[in-house]
Amino acid sequence: MIPLEKYSEALSQKLAATVSVKEPEQLYGPVSYIVSLGGKRLRPILTLMSCDFFSGSYEKAMDAAIAVELFHNFSLIHDDIMDNAPLRRGQETVHEKWDINTGILSGDAMLILAYQLFENYEPALFRDLAKLFSKTALQVCEGQQYDVDFETRDDVTLPEYIKMIDYKTAVLIGAAMKMGAIVAGASESCTEHIYDFGRYLGIAFQLQDDYLDAFGNPENFGKQVGGDIIANKKTFLYLTAFQNGSKKQADELVNLFSIEPKDPSDKIETVKRIFQTSGASEATKKEIIHYTEKANQVLEKIDISSENKEALREFGKSLMARTV
Amino acid sequence: MIPLEKYSEALSQKLAATVSVKEPEQLYGPVSYIVSLGGKRLRPILTLMSCDFFSGSYEKAMDAAIAVELFHNFSLIHDDIMDNAPLRRGQETVHEKWDINTGILSGDAMLILAYQLFENYEPALFRDLAKLFSKTALQVCEGQQYDVDFETRDDVTLPEYIKMIDYKTAVLIGAAMKMGAIVAGASESCTEHIYDFGRYLGIAFQLQDDYLDAFGNPENFGKQVGGDIIANKKTFLYLTAFQNGSKKQADELVNLFSIEPKDPSDKIETVKRIFQTSGASEATKKEIIHYTEKANQVLEKIDISSENKEALREFGKSLMARTV
Repeated sequence: MIPLEKYSEALSQKLAATVSVKEPEQLYGPVSYIVSLGGKRLRPILTLMSCDFFSGSYEKAMDAAIAVELFHNFSLIHDDIMDNAPLRRGQETVHEKWDINTGILSGDAMLILAYQLFENYEPALFRDLAKLFSKTALQVCEGQQYDVDFETRDDVTLPEYIKMIDYKTAVLIGAAMKMGAIVAGASESCTEHIYDFGRYLGIAFQLQDDYLDAFGNPENFGKQVGGDIIANKKTFLYLTAFQNGSKKQADELVNLFSIEPKDPSDKIETVKRIFQTSGASEATKKEIIHYTEKANQVLEKIDISSENKEALREFGKSLMARTV
Repeated sequence: MIPLEKYSEALSQKLAATVSVKEPEQLYGPVSYIVSLGGKRLRPILTLMSCDFFSGSYEKAMDAAIAVELFHNFSLIHDDIMDNAPLRRGQETVHEKWDINTGILSGDAMLILAYQLFENYEPALFRDLAKLFSKTALQVCEGQQYDVDFETRDDVTLPEYIKMIDYKTAVLIGAAMKMGAIVAGASESCTEHIYDFGRYLGIAFQLQDDYLDAFGNPENFGKQVGGDIIANKKTFLYLTAFQNGSKKQADELVNLFSIEPKDPSDKIETVKRIFQTSGASEATKKEIIHYTEKANQVLEKIDISSENKEALREFGKSLMARTV
């Protein structure tokens, strides 16, 4: 059994201490606020879990785990501005509660705070962690840019889409796990394999997020259901429906994704129906399983106990259980 | 003689290589653009100069110097969004040429690119540099936040104002010089003293910037002359005029700083006259000299040749020659 509650408890305490509100309040208040909104803490839990599995002690990875969570929250603040999103985890986004300028600056501060957490490691480890962090952070920015670019392009391919979600979401999950392994002193091949494991799981996770955006339960989802459809986002669902659907369905989709009705309810319902009748929702579920299986395959190559492998497999499965 | 042209030439080449446009173009294009606008390259030159004076070889400090310049440009992109500034170095700001979202994301990428440059140093040096960088970067964010806060406060004191410009501008100049000294392997007391030297010079430099915003030559200044007055910014000029001027002048200032006329020419002229008749412009010049002298005093404690001290003193003097 993975001691998820122990991880969560330890993370909450350390997170609260790290983001306590200092002067100036307008800078650090939003940092504390976004963290207080909670969330699954998936990424830092993966860092702790990974370190635990390779060395038997998750505490060593705590600072790296907090860095990953702060980075994730930094990207949420800035992405929410760019996406003009009103809600995050069912609460007001930072730029809604304060303003855009506050969101920009507090996000910047949060990115720097994340780097500072690596200072608690000895120099060689500090460099390895910060190097992986920077590489990953830059990929996340690139992924976000591709995401923005795709909104105004009508020739986005499925491989391009997968690359976008890989960069925007999956590499950070891979890096979160790799950091745990690095702190644990795992071999290079192990740190690479656990990175790939996290990355494949991350792609599955994001595809599932796309799926839930359309077909999730509004009460559990936290975000606005249908948000991607309202924003005319070409998600995996859209791209697959466009490719695999009939000419009529494809034309209808293009038409629907060119309008922004004041009341989007009809648009959302029609689009969801096309996602289902074209087979796109089934295809998306299959793709989620495909990447989950790829993750499990790479898991076999990792030098940890079979109990730990089974635990990781189960953990991946429980994440995916939200959908399929 | 300080080989400024040699530094500039080396910096230009390395900068251009570092910010070459990669995919996605919308992310890296603005990074390349803001750097291409030039500027004095004051901060990275100070890093190279400092390293040269402590070790005789500026090349070792090149990566740290570029990191400082990228960070400075990152902060310009984000500050220009927050200040709603149309021009930077006489050209369109990034958010004007592209849009706000592009400015946010390209700025983020630039901050990360800055950190990556420290990866070229061995671990102990990497940690020392990145640690100083993070501490400084966070202070710059705090300074920017104080600057924003001051716009809506009417009880800002002169010490608060000096702290704000210290954080927003001066600490980065201090850190730029300290990084050069760190790379050169200078003693801890030397790295501290050169930090203070840069910091005092930085405060003088920013006070001068305030002064030039009102009294600078529009053709040389690059930014919009009177921009601070239009934005109702309580600069050192304003705060001093408010404190030292007559009751009538103070009231007039408060009134002028509560309006935002479509054509601001009259407002700018009237405010400038109050700055002069209240003695605020003279007091600001004196404060610039005060901090320049503090910088020169700390210089005496530093263990470098008297020729190099004289060169630093002259360089500081040449910076201040723009104004007084």
